[in-house]
Order: sequence, then C-alpha cells, then structure tokens
Amino acid sequence: MSSTIGTLFRVSTFGESHGKAVGAIVDGCPASVELSEADIQPQLTRRRPGQSDMTTPRDEADQVTILSGVENGKTLGTPIGLMVNNRDQRPGDYQEMSNVPRPSHADFTYQMKYGNRAASGGGRSSARETIGRVAAGAIAEKILAERFGTKITAWVSSVGEIDACDMTLDIPTREQVDANIIRCPDEAAAAKMIDLVTFVRDRQDSVGGVLTCVVGNLPVGLGEPVFDKFEAKLAQAMLSIPATKGFEIGSGFSGARMFGSDHNDTFVQKEGRLGTRTNHSGGVQGGITNGEPIVFRVAFKPPATIGVAQETATFEGEAAVLEAKGRHDPCVVPRAIPIVETMVALVLLDFVQRQSFRTS
Amino acid sequence: MSSTIGTLFRVSTFGESHGKAVGAIVDGCPASVELSEADIQPQLTRRRPGQSDMTTPRDEADQVTILSGVENGKTLGTPIGLMVNNRDQRPGDYQEMSNVPRPSHADFTYQMKYGNRAASGGGRSSARETIGRVAAGAIAEKILAERFGTKITAWVSSVGEIDACDMTLDIPTREQVDANIIRCPDEAAAAKMIDLVTFVRDRQDSVGGVLTCVVGNLPVGLGEPVFDKFEAKLAQAMLSIPATKGFEIGSGFSGARMFGSDHNDTFVQKEGRLGTRTNHSGGVQGGITNGEPIVFRVAFKPPATIGVAQETATFEGEAAVLEAKGRHDPCVVPRAIPIVETMVALVLLDFVQRQSFRTS
Amino acid sequence: MSSTIGTLFRVSTFGESHGKAVGAIVDGCPASVELSEADIQPQLTRRRPGQSDMTTPRDEADQVTILSGVENGKTLGTPIGLMVNNRDQRPGDYQEMSNVPRPSHADFTYQMKYGNRAASGGGRSSARETIGRVAAGAIAEKILAERFGTKITAWVSSVGEIDACDMTLDIPTREQVDANIIRCPDEAAAAKMIDLVTFVRDRQDSVGGVLTCVVGNLPVGLGEPVFDKFEAKLAQAMLSIPATKGFEIGSGFSGARMFGSDHNDTFVQKEGRLGTRTNHSGGVQGGITNGEPIVFRVAFKPPATIGVAQETATFEGEAAVLEAKGRHDPCVVPRAIPIVETMVALVLLDFVQRQSFRTS
Amino acid sequence: MSSTIGTLFRVSTFGESHGKAVGAIVDGCPASVELSEADIQPQLTRRRPGQSDMTTPRDEADQVTILSGVENGKTLGTPIGLMVNNRDQRPGDYQEMSNVPRPSHADFTYQMKYGNRAASGGGRSSARETIGRVAAGAIAEKILAERFGTKITAWVSSVGEIDACDMTLDIPTREQVDANIIRCPDEAAAAKMIDLVTFVRDRQDSVGGVLTCVVGNLPVGLGEPVFDKFEAKLAQAMLSIPATKGFEIGSGFSGARMFGSDHNDTFVQKEGRLGTRTNHSGGVQGGITNGEPIVFRVAFKPPATIGVAQETATFEGEAAVLEAKGRHDPCVVPRAIPIVETMVALVLLDFVQRQSFRTS
Repeated sequence: MSSTIGTLFRVSTFGESHGKAVGAIVDGCPASVELSEADIQPQLTRRRPGQSDMTTPRDEADQVTILSGVENGKTLGTPIGLMVNNRDQRPGDYQEMSNVPRPSHADFTYQMKYGNRAASGGGRSSARETIGRVAAGAIAEKILAERFGTKITAWVSSVGEIDACDMTLDIPTREQVDANIIRCPDEAAAAKMIDLVTFVRDRQDSVGGVLTCVVGNLPVGLGEPVFDKFEAKLAQAMLSIPATKGFEIGSGFSGARMFGSDHNDTFVQKEGRLGTRTNHSGGVQGGITNGEPIVFRVAFKPPATIGVAQETATFEGEAAVLEAKGRHDPCVVPRAIPIVETMVALVLLDFVQRQSFRTS
Repeated sequence: MSSTIGTLFRVSTFGESHGKAVGAIVDGCPASVELSEADIQPQLTRRRPGQSDMTTPRDEADQVTILSGVENGKTLGTPIGLMVNNRDQRPGDYQEMSNVPRPSHADFTYQMKYGNRAASGGGRSSARETIGRVAAGAIAEKILAERFGTKITAWVSSVGEIDACDMTLDIPTREQVDANIIRCPDEAAAAKMIDLVTFVRDRQDSVGGVLTCVVGNLPVGLGEPVFDKFEAKLAQAMLSIPATKGFEIGSGFSGARMFGSDHNDTFVQKEGRLGTRTNHSGGVQGGITNGEPIVFRVAFKPPATIGVAQETATFEGEAAVLEAKGRHDPCVVPRAIPIVETMVALVLLDFVQRQSFRTS
Repeated sequence: MSSTIGTLFRVSTFGESHGKAVGAIVDGCPASVELSEADIQPQLTRRRPGQSDMTTPRDEADQVTILSGVENGKTLGTPIGLMVNNRDQRPGDYQEMSNVPRPSHADFTYQMKYGNRAASGGGRSSARETIGRVAAGAIAEKILAERFGTKITAWVSSVGEIDACDMTLDIPTREQVDANIIRCPDEAAAAKMIDLVTFVRDRQDSVGGVLTCVVGNLPVGLGEPVFDKFEAKLAQAMLSIPATKGFEIGSGFSGARMFGSDHNDTFVQKEGRLGTRTNHSGGVQGGITNGEPIVFRVAFKPPATIGVAQETATFEGEAAVLEAKGRHDPCVVPRAIPIVETMVALVLLDFVQRQSFRTS
Repeated sequence: MSSTIGTLFRVSTFGESHGKAVGAIVDGCPASVELSEADIQPQLTRRRPGQSDMTTPRDEADQVTILSGVENGKTLGTPIGLMVNNRDQRPGDYQEMSNVPRPSHADFTYQMKYGNRAASGGGRSSARETIGRVAAGAIAEKILAERFGTKITAWVSSVGEIDACDMTLDIPTREQVDANIIRCPDEAAAAKMIDLVTFVRDRQDSVGGVLTCVVGNLPVGLGEPVFDKFEAKLAQAMLSIPATKGFEIGSGFSGARMFGSDHNDTFVQKEGRLGTRTNHSGGVQGGITNGEPIVFRVAFKPPATIGVAQETATFEGEAAVLEAKGRHDPCVVPRAIPIVETMVALVLLDFVQRQSFRTS
C-alpha cells in the first residue's frame, strides 16, 4: 500500500468500503487558513452515492468531521484529521462473489498481492477510498482559490460513443456542469448521454466515458523537472483514480499526428505577461506551467461490476457464471468530476509549496 | 528540480546538453549482479544521436563509464555512478535564440521558474538529459530479465497520420523493431513513415508520433495502491520523458467508449495460473499487475525546434520571427524507444523491490 | 509539519492535546497479521496519564479504536486507521499563559513558525501527540515478536543525580520494569528516584532522567548506509520524542574516551553465528545490525511546565512572572518507556521491510 | 543503500574508497547562486588525508570538478554533479584481511547484508564516502552565509580523557580552530591531545574524541515537527557520519540531571527579538529553532583499524590474530570537523527551503 501523496502538502488516506470509517490526514497545510467542515462538504456531496439516477443507490450522507488541526476556525499548521463514517454497509451482498473474482475488478489482484482481501465490496479498491482525497483536495482548492483565484472545472465530455462539443475555449462554470445529472454542459449531448446511461443501467450493464478538465488562474513556474514534471505528477494523480485508463494533456494523442509548424504555440504579449496564441501545450512546457490554462482529459473504463451474466472462472480456475450483485454505478464519470477536480488541487498546491522558495 | 525517481531502486540524474557530462547515480541496486559497461551500452547506442537520417546529426558516441558500485564485475549493493561525457557541443548555435524563446520549448518556462537558464540548447530540458535514465534503466532491464525473463519491447505505431497495424498480440522482437530506421516493424507502414519524416526534415519542420510498448513475463502483484498504482507510476514515468503529451494503458481512450459487458476481461485457466481471455485492462487491475502483458501507448508531440519561420515574440513581448538553428530531430519516436523501454524497467524493478516483503 | 515516519512501514499521526481526537494511519503493514485493539491497548495504557503519583493527574483512558485495515481479525495490507478520543480537556487552564510563552516550551517557536498555535496546552507539541506513535508501534512490536522473537525493553536508568546500576548485561523483563511506579528495576535506586520525583512534584518543580533500552533477537543486516544507517534513523526517532536532548548507542560518549585496542569488539564463534566478545558497538557496525543486542540511552530534560515562579517575558518582550497552571508530569521518564519502545519497533520493522529483498 | 539526504535540497553520493571516483549530485539547489570549484575546495582540503601527523598518510589532493548545473559561474537550478577522482589506491594492502573481518569495522556487516563487499579498504563504509557530502555541504554553507550570515563552527573538545575548556559562549573562528593540527582552540589542551594522538599512533593504536559545534545567525522557525524536528534530523545527520556513537544538543545528558527551575531558559528581550537568558535548549524548542545558537556535541569512537594484534575470528568462526595493515587515522576528530560542519549546512538549508512557504 502507498496511501500518501505529496511532498510538502501531504495527504494520507485510509478506509475500506464496508469498514467503520474512511478519511485522511492532511499534513503540511499552511497555518491560519480559515477552515470548517462547510468548506469541505460541497465536493463530498457532489461525489456521494445515491444523488441521482445516474449513480449507485447506496445511500451515504458522507458528512465529514474535522478531528484535529483546526482551532477557533483557523488551521494550526498541524495535521488535519478528516473522518467520514460509513453507514449503509451491506456486506451480505457480496457473499456469492467470494470465490469468483469479478472480471476486470481488483478482487483477483488484491488476493494475489496481499493473500487476503476485504470480504465485502471493493475494500480499498472501492470508489469509497476517494472520500479522503476529495475531503483533502477541497482544502487545497480553497487555499488556491484564495491565493491565486485558481478555478478548476471538470465536465463530462463523452459517454460511450456520445461526444459533447469542445468547450475548452469557453469554460463552463460548476453550476453549468451541475445543471444536469450527467454533468455535461452541452445540453444536447447530455440528454443523449442520460438516455445511454439509463439504457445500460436497465440492462444491468455499464459504460465508460471521458472527462475534460481546465484549470485557470494558476502561477507560472510550477512543476519540478525532470521526474516530477507538472504533467507527470498530474498523470500519476489521475491514473491513481479507480477505473482510469488514459490521460492526455493539451493536444494529447491528436498532437502526435501534427506537424511542428502547426503544433507550436507561438508567443504573443498578453496583458501583463507573455502568453501563447494557441494552447496545444495544455499549459505546460518542459514540465513547468507557462501561465496558459491547464487542459487535460481522463478516460474512464465502464465499471466492472455488472449484473449481466459473465462466463468466467473461480479463483481455482473452474468455469463459473457470475451475475454480480451489490449496488454499483452504471457509469462513473458524473461522480468522478469532484474527484478529478480535488486531485488536481492536491497536485497544484503541492507544487506551489515546493516552488515558493526559488521565486521569493 | 526533482531529478530522482524510485522508492527503493532509486535513480538520480544530472547533466545539461552542452555541459561537461551527463549521468546518474543508481542507489538501491541489489548486490552481486554481474555488471559491466557492456550491459549498459546497447540501449545508449540505440538512443544516441546521429545514428540515421531520422535523427539529429549531432555526433555523440555516448560511451558510458561506471565510476563506482561495481568491483570484480559484480555490483556491491552500493551506489553505481554512471557518466557519459559530452563531446560535440556547439554553444554558438543558439545565440540568436537568446532573446526569443522557442515556441513550445522550455526556454520560457525555465527562465520564468529559475530566473536563469542554460544559454545553449535545452540544457536540462534537452533529450540529452535522458542518457542517465537510459543507462540506469539498462541495469534494471538486465536484472528483470535474469530474474523473471521479463521482456520489454516498444515500437513506433504511428508517425503523423500514418498508423501501423496492431501488433500487440504478436509482439515483435527488438531485432524486428530495429530492422528499419523508423523502428516500426510493420514494413509497409514503416516505408511511408520514413518518407514522411524525410519530407518534414527537408522542410525543416517536424512531426509527432506514438509508441506502443508491451511488457511480458512479469510477476503478478506489482503496484502499490492507492497513489502508487502500477499504471499511475508508469504514467508519471512516461510523462516525464520530454515531448510526451499522452498515456493510455490497455483499452485506454477507446475503452471509454465501450460497455462493461464487452470490456470486462473474463477469467480463464491458463498454464499454471488464472489468466484473462482478453486484455482490455492492459495487465493491471486496481493498480496491481495481474500477470497478463502490460500494454500501453505514449503520444509524442512534434519537436518544437524547427527551421520554419515562426511569427512569435521576444521575452519582452516584442514581435519577432524565429528560424531556429541547432541540430534537432525531425521526429523523436525512433530514438524514444530505448528511453521508454528503460523507463519501464526502472518503474518495474522499483515495484519488485517494494513488493517482495509481503509475498515472501 | 512532518508527521510521517518510515519508508515502507509508514506511520502518519494527527491530533492536538485538547482537540477531539488523536491517532494515526499505519500504511504498509503486512497483510494477514492477526490484530485487534487488545494488541495495541497495553502500551497505550502504560503511557496514559493519571496512572500513578509519578505522572500528571489528567485522566484519560486512552482507549484505541481501529477504523480500517482489519477485517475478521486480520490485517488486509491496507492502511490501519487508529483513533483515541480526548476526554479530559480543560482549555481554561491555559488562559493566563496566552501572552507569556512558557520558558523552554514550544509556545514561542510554534507561534513564530506558524503565526498561530493551539490556545490550550501544548497542542501538537504535547506528549499526547505520542499516542498515535505508540499505537502504531505496538503493531510493529507484535509483528517483530512473532517473526523474530524480538524483545524491546526500556527502563529508567537515572532520575536527576540518582543512577541505577548497569543492567544491560542482565536485561530486566517488562514485568520487572513495571514492578515500581518509577519503572527502574534497580529497587534501591528506584526508591530514591520515587522520593526525588515526589519532592520535585511537591515543590511544583520537575526533574530530568535517562532511559536505557536494549533490543534482543533481531536480524543481522538491518540498516541502510549511508544516510539511513540504523543508528542514524534510531537517533532521529528518539530525538523526535518530546523533551529528549541526547542519544548514545553502545559505548556512546564514554567510548570517545577509549583506545581502539580496548574498544574494539573482537569476534568469537557463538551458537550458529559469528558474534562479538564485548558490545561497545551497541549492536551496529557501519550502520548495519551485527546480531548483538542493540543498546542505547536517551536523555530527557526536566519538563518545562512548572508551578515555580519564573521571571521571564511576554511575547512582546515585557518582563513577566509566570507560575504555570495545567496538569503536568514532574518527570517524564516513566511514561516515556512505552514511547521509546514502540518508536524502536517502528524503526526496526521499517528496516526489515526495506531489507528483505536483498536477503531473499 | 540509502545514499540520498534531504527533502528539497537533496544530496545523493556515490563512490568507494578504492574505486575510480567519489562524488555527489546536489538536486534542488537554488538558481543564480555564484558558484565555482573554489567555493567547494577549502572544506575538501580541510578533510583530505595526509594533511598532518594526526591523520592517515594516504595522499589525496581531493580536487573537485563540477560536471553540471553551473554555467557562466552561476547555478542553473539544475542538478550539480560533483566528482573527485581517487588517486592513491592501494588495494593490495588489504589482502590479509579478506578472511578476517576487522573487529568493530563494517567488514562483517556489509558482507552479511550484501553477500559481497569491496575487497579493498572500507569501500562505502570508508571515510572517503564523506567527500561527496562535504562538497555538497560546502555549497549549502555558502548559500546560508550569503543569505543569513550563518556561521557554523566545530572544534575538538576532547580526545580520550583530555577535555578542552568550554568555548560555547566565546565561539572560536575557523582560523583559531585550524591554528593547531588537532583543531582544538584551547591551546593547553591541544598540546596534550597532540601528545596523546602521537602516542597512540606510535603504538599503532587509536583513540576517540568529541566535537562541539555551534551555529550562529540562523532563522527562527526551522524544523518540521513531529518526526522531522530540527534536532532529530540533525541527530540523524550526525549519526550517519562514520565512527559516531552519540549526539547531544544543549544541556544534553547533563540536562537529564537537572531540575526544571534550573534548566528552563527564561525569556528576555534582546535586540530586535525575544531571546533567552540561558541556552540549555541548544537553540531549539519543540523541534523548531528559537533564534539562539545551535549548540551540540558528537562522540566519535576510536578508529577500528589498528595495528595492535587482536585475538579475533575468521568469517567462518575460527580463531585468528589480526594485525591490520593499511593507512588509517589514529584519531578521526580533526578531519571530522569539516564533515560535521558541512552536514549541518545540508540539514539547515533543507529546512530553510521546506520552511519558506509558510513564513512568506
């Protein structure tokens, strides 16, 4: 296990899907930041299960408690303990899967790695693990917003074969993203996506999707070449989210099809700083932010736990048919939005803290 | 700067493109491994400049010297110092760019971050920085091959709009990859790719491309959830390579368009272990290797330094036209192959060393 | 703040003295270890306040709850969340000290470093911070005992000017250590120490002391030269305990007065292994354990919070007289014993996990 | 092996005593610092062997070369590669010890840990390993001196049973320290120490000693509680130096004999800041610097390699008599002075870089 992320702003998470609680310790948070549970709860509420027909029906309020690190409404500079109790545990749902590892799920690899695994649900590989990160990242978001006016906005840009139009040049607000339950601000595409998710849910199947995220108002100079390039640590953070299969920044895979003379972002004077005409770079050069918005996409596979009958095998290799029970999301991307946004904040604030000495 | 990678098998690199030397320290290498310069040189030679018409004409032999950590042909378990002298430095080539940051290059961001930068070439953002990694990774490759028979093979799967056929199920050998100068084992596609690179080189332009890499014969159980998932650290390693813009594993972005019932890799008994019928997962589940081959792709943008005239601006924001001099690759993917392969080895061996306690 | 210790067996702690709770996350614990709160509670009970006349009267049961990482009585290999609620908080006790930093306490430095500090008690600099470590270290102790039969025993070897006789060659058991309330197994010295602590407590003063600790039955080969030598990480761990001022291993400072021909530990065959006749080295050579018992001493200063009137100054530099209120230990060494023992276990188990790859 | 120290200002060293070269990579050094070999050489020259009758006769100029990270006399912010070639290697001197591990030396533990060891001299456990640290620390010293006027001064305060008078309140200069070959600024004690070292050298024996070090002009607020307290990381750094057996800060072990009312450092207004009347704390409170001078002592054992005949055993456990050959220091403390000073600088500058975000 390696449940800590960050060099100076460090987050360590704990908790299984069907244990007593999940949470995190945030170490290295600056002192004297105004902070209460009310700053953290909104992103937790955006990711909580049971919030719409697009998500698992598991019902959790996911109310966070701050255990330490804050006194009289301000951070002390000491570790912030964060805890969310699990309520709607149903370990019984998983009994029939005890000897048949779910295809494309972590049952098999956890068993092989640890020689043991949580008997109920995904344990540590469940999406509930992300609660600690989201709570911690919400703190980072607040600090970045206050200090730099940083805005981090993710939205659903595709579900299955349905693609939304490109909105990276006219970035939606979080309110616009949340205006529909699939969280795609292209209303026409959103309607089709909702139909598709409803369809797969009714079939007890699942479907994948892609998120796009844009980060505006962040300092120039963040990122630590060579191994901790901005995009490298961002890629690590994104691929650490359950169900992710791909990451691209700026032009990404389509940039690999272009000529340099078309791809290069030439410089132009912008108000108060040197900017670029285009942003194929996605806001980074040589692993360092250049002041243009960070633009990236993350691919999520279809959830592995489905009710559709699957011809598979037991741990011992005998043929078996699995129709998985339990409560699961038919498509993870709407709930992944606050996860992606808060993970970006964790990466960003850590780079801000690593950078400051050299700029001052 | 953050020039160290790895938790137990740790590599720290140094060196600018036009300084005295480049190299690395490998700390945490197991003792009693047979090792000499001859084990390291082949991958350095595959990445060296000037090896074909597809690459920069800069001429460097890139001969490595082992400075420490090896005695009587065996590793001591102590840090292995590795050094390659720079020979063909031509600082003068870069004078005209001193006040005009190259578009989509790191000139601007290094200057903003550090308030200083190497006057010649890319300094630390140059591809010469990768020499230290390749030398260190060649050691890791040797250890993995001896211990597990691990095979790591990358090839060029696209250049610009030219795509090779899918070879992930019939993996080419390194010899087949090296059979042509573009390093694409699909001979028909290779010929077109070579033509395209020749075309852009003659125009003083550049073009992007994609590498595919497959890793076979590796242990089940590698990877450290949750933040150091196998694919997360692999993504970080790949995005730390200069000019990369995207990473996907297994089904990647195309998996985001699928249904779960099509995407899930159902289990089946294979010789001596439980395997999967398909490999949309790309060899990982829940951040842990499942014993199937690791399959991933990396997108490289077109090199930024081109001779084509670009309308851009000086550091002070005044309009300027840049026709870059210096010697540069028209397309980086052929030389990126040993870099990708050795970076995979660094990630893999570190996970092997982190894992062993719990399995034994 | 840097509240994480360890490379592979990693412990992150949280909690202030007068907040809601204190605790820890243990990341990297091996899977399938039998574990319950009953394994952890004894060392917490040995360090809890209010247990005797030698300690602060603050009354805390310090009952630990495992929040995650254990299912059906066995560890999952996932992070173990540990929590102890604070009960007997009395923030009011500290009001008069709000503008007068306690001499030789952390009030002043926390305020200068963080620009903010816990208004009540020592906050994070309080001995209550050690609860998380002790709980985590108790887990490490159990694993080491089961795997290697490792025995870690600390005792009070001096209080003020009263010295116990040398017991490093005839190591007492924990039961013998706990036979008196000062935890010194030399009964004659113990009686005088108890008198001395009673005397200083009645004067509202405090007194320092020294612990000796011996570790038997541990593997040869632990420790990672050069910067993470066994004794170097042990020294860091000990000096991270509140109120410590010194550390010595083996012959320590008295060894600096000796000749090599007297100090060298010559080799002799022991049952099944090569051992040494003497143990001036304290069980380590070149930063690596040699199989002899680890022997070290830790110096604790007298507690800083005393009721004796002190002529000092306010934060603004104005003269002030402080007679500190609050409940405090007159001498920390009896309660420091489980802290030292469990910290040793954290260091040891981390080295075991870092080492295993190379020995297997 | 763990040959890297530091979180943001990170130093990785390499090299055996009888290999081609020793050196270091300094990663995280601020950019635009004026730097050349001339800034680094003086401390290397102070630690080089063969400089006086107090040291080993091995003759090494220990000239350092900067391989990277500096251009036009200024640092680039990129890794600084540092190399010193070994010249006076005499592997033959060690043949007779190949089967008889030197008592109290690392021959036995390296062999047990790694299953292999440098055939000649101490390999990585040799004092030559410290060259990389000293070179790196000399860079840190320069930055601290320029930024804060920091002065780090160590001297020999005892050799064997000969103690110098206390000079911590009237700190000698480096010139005063270097005025005699034993590097003790108490001239009367120095003469006796020189006689004692001459005596043990002529007997082919060795003797231990203690260094005292004082650090003045450093910022308030350095140190990262709880596990990376200032004194904890300083203790780790000191105990990572070969031959060290103890560390104490401020009152140290003698403070453990005192009452709180005598030991507490009461506050008093000093020019421009709140200071303390006494400095039993040694400049730290709660793991954080308080602005008073850092005062600490380090105990060094007598060197293990002596010509005196020792009754010991072979690796196989058979009785053997060893009269060690090779060239060795009769007492390490004079040469340890630049090692201690530069290690302090490494610890200090790393804390400065970790701290700055929160103070700005």
